[in-house]
Amino acid sequence: MPEQDRLETVVALTKRRGFIFPAAELYGGFRSAYDFGPLGVLLLRKIRDEWWRFMVRERPEVVGLEASILTPRAIWEASGHLEHFADPLVDCRSCKERWRADQIDGVCPRCGSRDLTPVRAFNLMFRTQVGPVEGEGAEAYLRPETAQGMFVDAAGVARAMRLRPPFGIAQIGKSFRNEITPGNFVFRTREFEQMEMEFFVHPDAADKAHDFWIEERMRWYDALGLTGAWLRLREHDRDELSHYASRTVDIEFRFPWGYGELEGIANRTDFDLRAHARAAREDLSFLDPETNERFYPYTIEPAGGVTRAAMAFLLAAFDVDEVNGEQRTVLRLSPRLAPYTAAVLPLARKPELTSLARRVFDELATIVDVDYDETQSIGRRYRRQDEIGTPWCVTVDFESLDDAAVTIRDRDTLQQERVAISDVATKIAERLEAAPRARARALTFHQR
Amino acid sequence: MPEQDRLETVVALTKRRGFIFPAAELYGGFRSAYDFGPLGVLLLRKIRDEWWRFMVRERPEVVGLEASILTPRAIWEASGHLEHFADPLVDCRSCKERWRADQIDGVCPRCGSRDLTPVRAFNLMFRTQVGPVEGEGAEAYLRPETAQGMFVDAAGVARAMRLRPPFGIAQIGKSFRNEITPGNFVFRTREFEQMEMEFFVHPDAADKAHDFWIEERMRWYDALGLTGAWLRLREHDRDELSHYASRTVDIEFRFPWGYGELEGIANRTDFDLRAHARAAREDLSFLDPETNERFYPYTIEPAGGVTRAAMAFLLAAFDVDEVNGEQRTVLRLSPRLAPYTAAVLPLARKPELTSLARRVFDELATIVDVDYDETQSIGRRYRRQDEIGTPWCVTVDFESLDDAAVTIRDRDTLQQERVAISDVATKIAERLEAAPRARARALTFHQR
Repeated sequence: MPEQDRLETVVALTKRRGFIFPAAELYGGFRSAYDFGPLGVLLLRKIRDEWWRFMVRERPEVVGLEASILTPRAIWEASGHLEHFADPLVDCRSCKERWRADQIDGVCPRCGSRDLTPVRAFNLMFRTQVGPVEGEGAEAYLRPETAQGMFVDAAGVARAMRLRPPFGIAQIGKSFRNEITPGNFVFRTREFEQMEMEFFVHPDAADKAHDFWIEERMRWYDALGLTGAWLRLREHDRDELSHYASRTVDIEFRFPWGYGELEGIANRTDFDLRAHARAAREDLSFLDPETNERFYPYTIEPAGGVTRAAMAFLLAAFDVDEVNGEQRTVLRLSPRLAPYTAAVLPLARKPELTSLARRVFDELATIVDVDYDETQSIGRRYRRQDEIGTPWCVTVDFESLDDAAVTIRDRDTLQQERVAISDVATKIAERLEAAPRARARALTFHQR
Repeated sequence: MPEQDRLETVVALTKRRGFIFPAAELYGGFRSAYDFGPLGVLLLRKIRDEWWRFMVRERPEVVGLEASILTPRAIWEASGHLEHFADPLVDCRSCKERWRADQIDGVCPRCGSRDLTPVRAFNLMFRTQVGPVEGEGAEAYLRPETAQGMFVDAAGVARAMRLRPPFGIAQIGKSFRNEITPGNFVFRTREFEQMEMEFFVHPDAADKAHDFWIEERMRWYDALGLTGAWLRLREHDRDELSHYASRTVDIEFRFPWGYGELEGIANRTDFDLRAHARAAREDLSFLDPETNERFYPYTIEPAGGVTRAAMAFLLAAFDVDEVNGEQRTVLRLSPRLAPYTAAVLPLARKPELTSLARRVFDELATIVDVDYDETQSIGRRYRRQDEIGTPWCVTVDFESLDDAAVTIRDRDTLQQERVAISDVATKIAERLEAAPRARARALTFHQR
């Protein structure tokens, strides 16, 4: 299938099956954002949970944070975002359309005019007014990255949790950027969700920590299904580095239009902590208890997107094969990411079957996300479950009334296993546990 | 302890121990919002997970949604929020301070002047500008409630998931209200997190469904620790009902300043679906396949706050008792809500103990959130774990090197049990499983 068709097919599937809807479609749509439907939410929840487990729960040296989205101007003044976080913008004087200067070639792509204004900086932060009184103190911004929350709160978090470098603060949450040209489905939207970790480390150990986190993040994606050529690493050129970074390595995914950023892993040096220390006139340095040295740690930042990861996992999972001479669409999502781990399907809509099936549902729902479907033929229901990536279908048939057993069908092997109803939850839990996942490695470098 | 002291003590504890920090404190604070520190995030995550399990996962008739925060004007025009979602505001002509007219008594509380402006409506929605072009189409709002996402997407969700009333769409996410007077810690903030469900039901069954959800929600809070007099139900008077509701019952929590809203359960009638159908010129009715009747369902909405629930659970859990003749502060949080389910504590900072303790941590971290602490005396560490609500402390001592066993200490009974290291994870899982939780009940009413 040509790559552009693959994109369109997956976009159509995600809409038809309730993964992703254009936001405010009832009102003609709203290019800035997307809504995640029932299956999309389940996918997002699993991506977040896998990230959290791997980045926070399994690491005693990493803790979480959820800082506010609404933030006062002072933070973005100090961080440099008010000055630097801008795209170059030009207006076409003929048709009045606006463009990103670095994406056009001296000619308006709409009307072909060369009569363009000079390039000027367009700040990407959304501004709003807080409180009933107007004025400078009442100006607030929607954060364009979750990261600044970790820097502003670093000292408070370290104190409360008795942490010293090397340690990390991790955050999952929404960020907002007033992109001039959103597009490519959920690849670039004005509202998006990040999963970022700021890892504070002595400057002497920063390079080793950087390499460590690049490897860790690659292992995480790989175990969840982005294997082989789906990913590559790309080092930023000097001139594309953000204003705060000394080195950045992107994990790129093979999107249908070519490799594009999935996650950036940056060495932000001590730029941010020093900037806030200066602006707030506070000492934000740390003490090395062995040498008695006070120092500003460097920060290694693996910054991924929940939204973008969801898109990558969906694109990589999409497959078409043949079953019993018929074409079948199947999402080969890792069982750890599939929206529903299992689906309970009574063979027919008879009360004796549906009430038994509902009992199986109740039992499974205590441990995993389960779909329940009693509509249509069993063949069509299998096809739907394949299309939404459900790894295991649990079918309750008339024999179940006699043998108190059900059939578990595997999405990939299509093999069916007869299992006692009393064992179904355990069996599903075992199969899920057997699916690959990366475990956190202990730090492989020392403080200095 | 007097109630106001209780509030101040809990606020101080949450800051000192890393639950909740004032946002942007480094810059003198930002009254609009709070940041949730490492322990606060763990508490929020558990509240969300318990809600999601009970409201969505265990119910085949309820599905999830995550709609965008940035929303176009058209939605709020249709929903009535642009017109009605406002507080009455007055200015003091003497000192220029602004007040909510319904919270003062004809006299400026600051300067005592009676020279106030007439009351006018102050809309509570945050507005921002989207895209590089100014103008009406570029105007967007931060949603003041997650609910409208469920109404706007209801038809698309029902189609993708093959749902018919009665069914529910649930959402957890941030909402924003430009409150004139935020306050009472995280009780009223401009940025907050909601957990809402819109349950669509035939108008004839709406009253029964309303009662059903009031009971369900009470069972949920009760099982997680808000028992007895912590909660009460309060019926809204006619004149305090929102513009969309025919009846609302609040679940109120006994805050230190008196009972206040924890969750509102409203019958929104068919107001919202009809409003969007009218504005978008779409038929949003549903078909009853038995009677062939087309109808607009009523909506029952249990709308709780994640942020507010966190505050209530913390206030109710706070306790002071006496252990070995010394005062002890203890958060008696449900084990299902405690930030850390367990803490692993090596008795001394010797490599043979800490490496064994780290292995115990690694094992436990695969199933629950675990703290690891090797600082200070064991007595101080127990006290810290009591203060943050950790139900079980796992102590690795010198005997552990011989008997391959550890001690599990219970926060509430203070009893210690010696357990083989190979059994620790199972034991903790069993204790957690034994802690009360409400299970979803099947619907107790029929469609009509």
